[in-house]
Amino acid sequence: MITSMANSKVKRLAALAQKAKARREEQCFVVEGIRMFREAPADWLREVYVSETFLHKYGREALGRVSFEILTDAVFQKASDTQTPQGILCVLSMPRYELAAHLAIQCTDTAKAPLYMLLEDLQDPGNVGTILRAGEGAGVDGVILTRQTADLFNPKVIRATMGSIYRVPFFVVDSLTDSIDLLREKGVAVYAAHLDDSVDYDVPDYTQPTAFLIGNEGNGLRRETAQRAAQYIKIPMAGQVESLNAAMASAVLMYEAARQRRKNEYTN
Amino acid sequence: MITSMANSKVKRLAALAQKAKARREEQCFVVEGIRMFREAPADWLREVYVSETFLHKYGREALGRVSFEILTDAVFQKASDTQTPQGILCVLSMPRYELAAHLAIQCTDTAKAPLYMLLEDLQDPGNVGTILRAGEGAGVDGVILTRQTADLFNPKVIRATMGSIYRVPFFVVDSLTDSIDLLREKGVAVYAAHLDDSVDYDVPDYTQPTAFLIGNEGNGLRRETAQRAAQYIKIPMAGQVESLNAAMASAVLMYEAARQRRKNEYTN
Repeated sequence: MITSMANSKVKRLAALAQKAKARREEQCFVVEGIRMFREAPADWLREVYVSETFLHKYGREALGRVSFEILTDAVFQKASDTQTPQGILCVLSMPRYELAAHLAIQCTDTAKAPLYMLLEDLQDPGNVGTILRAGEGAGVDGVILTRQTADLFNPKVIRATMGSIYRVPFFVVDSLTDSIDLLREKGVAVYAAHLDDSVDYDVPDYTQPTAFLIGNEGNGLRRETAQRAAQYIKIPMAGQVESLNAAMASAVLMYEAARQRRKNEYTN
Repeated sequence: MITSMANSKVKRLAALAQKAKARREEQCFVVEGIRMFREAPADWLREVYVSETFLHKYGREALGRVSFEILTDAVFQKASDTQTPQGILCVLSMPRYELAAHLAIQCTDTAKAPLYMLLEDLQDPGNVGTILRAGEGAGVDGVILTRQTADLFNPKVIRATMGSIYRVPFFVVDSLTDSIDLLREKGVAVYAAHLDDSVDYDVPDYTQPTAFLIGNEGNGLRRETAQRAAQYIKIPMAGQVESLNAAMASAVLMYEAARQRRKNEYTN
C-alpha cells in the first residue's frame, strides 16, 4: 500500500493527469471511476490504483482478474484529478489510429457511407469531449482534430466523452488541409460550418460519404481550411445570435446526417 | 475612484457575482465585458463600474451617456468574477416575466406557433446558458426552468448565454407540472425527452405549438413530470452511448423544430 504523498508513483499519476507533456512522453493517460475502468479495452490497460475505501466498499471482486495497487484515501486524493474521487484510477496506453488506413477500410464499406468530424483548434475540453460522445451517438466513424485542439487525453475531455474515447477512432493531425485532401480523394464530401455564402445545413445530401468541418470557438475556421471544403453550410439563426457554440453546432449537424440516413433506410 | 479592496461596494459586487442569495435579496445581478454592457436593455441598467485601464483604453465615449464609477485595476480584479477582466462590469435589475401572461399573448399569435423549453433541475451552468443561446438561435419563445435548476444569474450561465439572457424570456417556476398543465390548456403539445417507450424525435409535427421537456443531467426527468407529457420522444443512439448531454439533446430537438418550421414555410 502506498501511504506517502511523496511517493514517486503518486507524483507521476498527478503529472499524467495535469500535464500533456507527461502523457506524451509516456504515451499513456489516466481515467477515473468505476465505469471508465469497466469499459476500458483490456489491451489499453497498464496499471490500476484503488483507494482503501474503494476496496473496502466494492471488494477485490469488483476488479476481476486485474492486478492493482492500493493507496490510502488521502494519497489517492492527491493522485486524483477530481474533487470527490470514486477511488479507482487507471493508466491506459494511448491508442494509435492511422487515418489513411482507416479511410481505406471505411470507404470501401458499401453498407454504410462514412461520416467524419473535423475539428480545427477547438480550445474548450468540454466541447471536444462532448462532440466525441454525441459523435458516437450519431454514428460518426471518426473524429479528426488538429494538434492545436484541446488535448483529448486531458481528464476534462475524457470525463465529457463518457466512455466514447474508447470507441470512437480519433486522428490528431498536423495538417487539416492534407486530411481534407485525403477525404476528398476517397470521395467524402467535406462541408464547412461557415457564415459566408452558405446554404442551410439541411439542404445537402448527407446519406453520401460526409465530413463536417468545425472551427475554433472564437475565430471560426481558417480561410485556407474553409476553402478546401466542397460546400459551406450554415445553421440558420433567429434573434441576434451569431452562431452556436461549437459543440451544439456539431450536434445539430451530426444528427441531421443521422436523421437523413435513417429516413433513407425507411424509404429504400 | 475606488482604490480600496475593503470598500463596501467592492465587497458587494463580489458577493453579487458569487452568491445567489445576495442576488435574490437585491433582485439584481452582474454582467461583465463591453459586449454585455452594450447589449444590456437600458431599463435593466442600475450601475456601471470600469477599471482605470479600461477608461484609458476606450475613453468616456465608449460609455455613452451612462454614469459610472472608476476602480483601480487591482480593485476591479477583486470585484470581477473573471481571471482576465475586460474592465467593465454592470449591475442590472432582474427582469420579471410572467408565464400565464406570456402564454396568453404568445398562444394567440396565429403567425407563429409557440416553442418552449422546459428544464427540470439542470445542474450545469454551462448547459443552462448554452440552451438559452441556442434557444434564441432556434427561435424559442421562452425557457421555463425549475427553481432547482442552476441559477440563471450565475456569472457562468450569463457568460454562456452570450447575451441571449437579454432576449429570451425565462420563467423560474416552483412546479413544472403546473406549467405543463398551463401549456396544455393553451394547446401546446409537451414532448418529454425520455428513453422509455418513445418515438424517434423527428416523427412528431413540431410546426404546431410545441414544448420540449429536458431532465436533470444525472437522473433524467422525474416520473410525475414525464407522465404529464403528451408524448415521449427519443434521440436514437448508435454505439454504446446511453444519451446525449442535456444541452446537446436540447440543440438537436430545438433545431429539428426549427427545420420543420422552415420546411413548412417553403411548402405552404
